[in-house]
Formats: sequence, C-alpha cells, structure tokens
Amino acid sequence: MSPLTPPLSRRLDGLQSSAIRDLLKLTVRPDIIGLAGGLPDEQLMPRDRIALAAESALADRSRLQYTESAGWRPLREVLTVRESARLGRDVPIEEVFVTHGSQQALSLLAEVLLDPGALVVVEDPAYVGALQVFRAAQARIVAVPLDAEGMRVDVLAELLAGGERPAVVHTVSNFHNPRGVTLSPERRAELANLAQRYGFWVIEDDPYGELWFEEPSPRPVATYSPNVIRLSSSSKILAPTLRTGWMVAPDAVCRAVELLKQGADLCGSALTQQITAELLAETEWLDAHVDKVRRAYGERAQALVGALRERFGDRVVSTDATGGMFVWVDFTDGTDTVDLLPRALEHGVAYVPGSAFAVASGNRASMRLCFTTSDAVTLAEAVDRLGRALGD
Amino acid sequence: MSPLTPPLSRRLDGLQSSAIRDLLKLTVRPDIIGLAGGLPDEQLMPRDRIALAAESALADRSRLQYTESAGWRPLREVLTVRESARLGRDVPIEEVFVTHGSQQALSLLAEVLLDPGALVVVEDPAYVGALQVFRAAQARIVAVPLDAEGMRVDVLAELLAGGERPAVVHTVSNFHNPRGVTLSPERRAELANLAQRYGFWVIEDDPYGELWFEEPSPRPVATYSPNVIRLSSSSKILAPTLRTGWMVAPDAVCRAVELLKQGADLCGSALTQQITAELLAETEWLDAHVDKVRRAYGERAQALVGALRERFGDRVVSTDATGGMFVWVDFTDGTDTVDLLPRALEHGVAYVPGSAFAVASGNRASMRLCFTTSDAVTLAEAVDRLGRALGD
Repeated sequence: MSPLTPPLSRRLDGLQSSAIRDLLKLTVRPDIIGLAGGLPDEQLMPRDRIALAAESALADRSRLQYTESAGWRPLREVLTVRESARLGRDVPIEEVFVTHGSQQALSLLAEVLLDPGALVVVEDPAYVGALQVFRAAQARIVAVPLDAEGMRVDVLAELLAGGERPAVVHTVSNFHNPRGVTLSPERRAELANLAQRYGFWVIEDDPYGELWFEEPSPRPVATYSPNVIRLSSSSKILAPTLRTGWMVAPDAVCRAVELLKQGADLCGSALTQQITAELLAETEWLDAHVDKVRRAYGERAQALVGALRERFGDRVVSTDATGGMFVWVDFTDGTDTVDLLPRALEHGVAYVPGSAFAVASGNRASMRLCFTTSDAVTLAEAVDRLGRALGD
Repeated sequence: MSPLTPPLSRRLDGLQSSAIRDLLKLTVRPDIIGLAGGLPDEQLMPRDRIALAAESALADRSRLQYTESAGWRPLREVLTVRESARLGRDVPIEEVFVTHGSQQALSLLAEVLLDPGALVVVEDPAYVGALQVFRAAQARIVAVPLDAEGMRVDVLAELLAGGERPAVVHTVSNFHNPRGVTLSPERRAELANLAQRYGFWVIEDDPYGELWFEEPSPRPVATYSPNVIRLSSSSKILAPTLRTGWMVAPDAVCRAVELLKQGADLCGSALTQQITAELLAETEWLDAHVDKVRRAYGERAQALVGALRERFGDRVVSTDATGGMFVWVDFTDGTDTVDLLPRALEHGVAYVPGSAFAVASGNRASMRLCFTTSDAVTLAEAVDRLGRALGD
C-alpha cells in the first residue's frame, strides 16, 4: 500500500495570495521606482532611541521572560493615558489590550465577534488585510463605497433599512488605505448612531491617524459610542519591527480576545513592548519625532500630487493626501491600470492597480501610489515615467 | 429606543479560562514556593549575548521594517542548517517557517489542517495550549493515554482499527508537558507508520527536546514520515521574549500557513528574529550555553525527585525527570490533589493538580511540579511543605 498524504482544510479553498502581489514581488528591482509598497520610511524611524530603550529593557532579566497575554502592564498603562487623551474619557486599563500589530487585533476580533456566515460590512476599495481576515472567518461580506468624505454611511443606512443586519462594520477612519480619504465628523456621528440603533460592532481601524499633514484627524468614531472598538499601532509612528498594536474595547471583548490570544501565541514580547512603552511615554520627544515624520511625508505627498496634476491635468482625479501614506488616482479617461502595469514596470515605475483592493471587482481605472519612501525629485521622476508608459 | 449592545461569537461558549489557572494567579506570593509555573529560569538566559545581538541587529535600519511572513530569511537559513542536522536530511528552506512562538504554529496549523468537526487525537494528560487551540478550531477531540514510554500508540492503533479517522494526531514527543515522559523510538516508528497507512498528520511538538540531562532525545518522529510536522522553539533554550518558534513541514503546508499568517499578524519582528539567528548560528557558544542550562535543570530535577522519594516513599510514583522542565507525581493512595491545593498554598507551596491537564476528567491523584526556577534547597523545602500539607 502506498503511503497516504493527508489533505489540507477546505477553508483554504476560498483564500489565495493576490496575483498582483505576486507580480509586484518579482519587480523589486533597483531600477524601478516603487510606489506600490505600503511601508513607512525606515530612514525616519528612531533607530537610536530604540537601541537605547532595548538596552534599558534588557537590564531587567524579567524582560526575557513570557509576559501577560493582554500585554506588558506598564505598556498598557502608557496606552491608557494616551487613549484617554485621544478619546476624551478615563479609559480603564481593562479596556486596553496589546496585540502583535493591529493586524492581530483584527484577526482575534474576527473570531470573537463573528459566527460563520455573519455579515461584515467593509469599505470598497478595502484594506486587503481586513478582507483576508473576514474571508478566513467565513463571513458574508458586503461592501459600501467611499467618497471624498469616507464611507458612504447613507448607503450603509439603506442596507440596514432594507433588512441587512451586520455583526461588524469595518472602517479605516483616517487617511484610508488605499483610498486616502478621512471619514467626516458628521458621518462618524451617524455611523455610531446606526451601530447603537441596530446593535452592531464598528471596528475603527486607525493606524494612520497621527500622520496628519495640515490639521489633526477628527475625534475618533469611538468617542460617539461604546459599540466602537478602536485599533491603533506604533508601526507607522515608531517602527514595524516592534510589532505593537493595541485595541480599546469593552472589558468583555478584551477578556474574550485574551482567551483567544493565549491559544494564538500565548503573549507578545516583553522586550519590544518595553521599548514601545518607553518611547510612547516620552511625550515631548515623541511629539517632535512624529512632527518630523509628518513634515517629511507631507512634503512628499504634496510633491506627488503636484506632479500628477501638472503632468496629467484633467485626465486624473487624485486625492489631496492630507495625511497617511497613500494617494489614490482615478483616470477620468478610463485608463485600465491592470493593463498598464507591465508597461509601467518596463518604464521603471511600480504602483498597485485599484482592482487589487476591490471587494468583488472594479476600480480598473484607479491606482494606489505610496509616497512615504521617495523624495520629491524621485516622485516627480516616477510620475514622468508613468506618463511615458501611458504614451504621452 | 435604548442603545443595543452587540453580541459576541457563539464559539466562545465552549472556551473558558481554567479555574485552576485563575486560582494560581492569585497565589503568586513571595512566601509561596511556586512549582506550579512552567517558566524557564531567567537567571540562566543569555542576557548579555541577547543585548549584544540586539545592538548589532539595530545597526541595520532595515531591521526596523516589516519582514517576510515566513520569517526573516537569514534566520530561516540558520534553522535550515540546524533542522537538517536534527532530521538527517537536507531540509529545503521552503519547508522552514518561523512563527511567533511555536504556539502560533499550532494555532495556524489548526486552521490549515482542520475542518470544523474534524477529529484530533491528543495525549491525556494534554498540553493545555494545544487543547485550547483544537477546541477553538471546533475539532472533535479524542484522548489517548500516556505511559512511561510516551503516547500509547497501541491504543491509537485500536482507535484506527475501530474506524476512527483523525485529521491530526498531536504529540509532545520529548519530556512531555505535563507528563515528563519521552516517546520511545519503537513507538515513534509505529506512529509514523500509522500516519502513512491511514493518511493523517502528526504534529510533533518539541519545545523541550534540547533539555536532556542524561542522553540526547531519540531522533524526531519527523525522520520517519513526511506526514509529520515538527515544531520547535527558542523559548526554552534562549529566552521567551524572542517569541521565536518554527516549524518544519511540507512546502504546501508552509505556503498555506503563510497565507494565514498574513491575516493573523502580517509578520514577526525582524529585530527579535535577527537576535535569535545570531545566537543559534554561534554553535560553539550555543552548545556550551545549552549545556549549562541542562546541568542546572538536571541537578534541580534530581533534587526534587530525590526529595519526593525520600519524603513519600511508596506513597508516590514520580517520573525520573530525564529532561525538560516537569516532574509528574501520582499518589498511589489516591490523594486528591485538587482538594489538597488550598492546604498546600497555606503551607507555602504551589503546584498544578493533574486534573488541570485532563482532556475530560481524571488525574485527580496526580500533580505537575516544575523544577526549573528553584534551587535544590528550595525544592527540598517545597517537598517538606507538601508533606506537612498532607498532615505527615
């Protein structure tokens, strides 16, 4: 009898790596200007402060040990102060939970909040990391479009009026990835209002809120209702290597997440959590540091948007890029950005076609450009190459 | 209308924090000798080497960035060399996957290998972190007992002959947690043989294999069949704060885990992964370091087992503790270790009752003692306190 190879779970059938991600993986060549990535600029990360904090963390041997599943307590204390200021109320420490990047919060929340077949409303175009999690949880996914003021909460209201009953509504409230827009204060209030009226959870996914260029982001959706779970992260303001995200959620949600975190990976790293705590606690230094990042990204965003408008005029509508890491470009002449990609790569510029973020299909005439890791001259050159790829 | 609070997932109903864990949480008092924990000794962790490696990792700014989901490639290369030596074949790098502790490998594998309702065979008493994962995956769980030679593979064979068809069999092959025993070479071959004959996966969970006191652990079950997925970790030989586990599995399994890891937490920390890589690559230093840990734990194990036998004689049967971190004690007179616990705590000693590791119920006359974090004198005192709690 020949040996039997066991099968894999059927739940994998619906999941697949994105074809575009695979294509872009092959094109990390030095001659290509990469606007496809979504990485913060490592040149702006506070390397020396992280090294100092690492040294100080390792002075205490108990930092080498396992730590609590909910996160190293002094980090949770620092986050409690920070989130109390952001949310305008005294957040108790029980409502603050540290995760391995905010992506882990998303994935644990999907387990805690969703039964298989539950309805999840996402934005379209969507943050693909959220789509992946909700699909793996076997949720039914319905998309609501975005416009310049963020999620079309009126479309959500229509769905609800029509009888749809979501368990969760997911929104990237500030400087949306990929769409670049920010949910307006009026819509925040209305979204929270609907959450309370119909009894659903809102996951307010906010990794970019601190990266505003002109004026601070509006107050969080979470300030309007206890049905809103707020996610944030140190990855974009400090460094992704710390793998420190966090969530502010009702105690019952945090305790359920804690139970699942024990099974998922026991706990985070006391070393990287102490580094994060130390840097987030030095508020004066932190303010200056984040300000430097904001200025650098703001200049790059302006350079990119300026070059796009100068080169393409009415042929494109691009977001204003008032914060975050991305500019979203719509071609008014219907240029197909999937067809364009191989030519763009030939001309030495990479982007992500809008269709990569579509919940079903669509966004064929759009693209996402990331401005964080290139200087103004390089961004202008990238736009020029894009123009040449378009045959201008 | 009053605001509606949304519900949590029904899958949480079956999960709960262990009552005993909660009890023990309350008793971390300085006057209690804690043999209940399962922590390696932080005094033996290579703090200075970790600090040096952290400094060197942070010299390169790209270590601050996101890294690959499968793990920082140079760490995977080091692990490939290490696992090739352990497994006696050239392991290709595609079959080595880094996880956030080996607990994360378990939880991702549960998603990759199990459909809801699938059968999982575990050992009884069981590693509770595995039980938690398989329960969360909504698996049907069947237990097979352990004896002095590890899993009763003959009982598994009977189950299979009787028509049971597991998707996964989980075993802690070396120095079992909590049972202390090691799967014999004969049973390893037979387990692998059954896996191929009936087409199931074996998860060989091996965090303790390096911690042998007298002679090296037998060759891994994974050397006998490609149906065996091997998990290991740096937590017990270096430090848990590095949160670095890994898995050796067929390419198709690794690629499926990679897809789910992207949703679970995107990637690990390039910082802690480089520290781990550096320390694992210095084989001469590593051998000497692990040898030091072995000697210290070996002496402690001997002290504990000696004190138990001297104090209780025939009243207990304890494992020989030839490696790992735990001694398992059976009371031949049927002493109920759950009833005993409050009295033991009064007398200043903590342990985990055997029933905490039971798959259904049982092990009421057993306890798990951890010897890693106490010296010989303290262990003797702990046994004395236990005797006094028993009214001797």
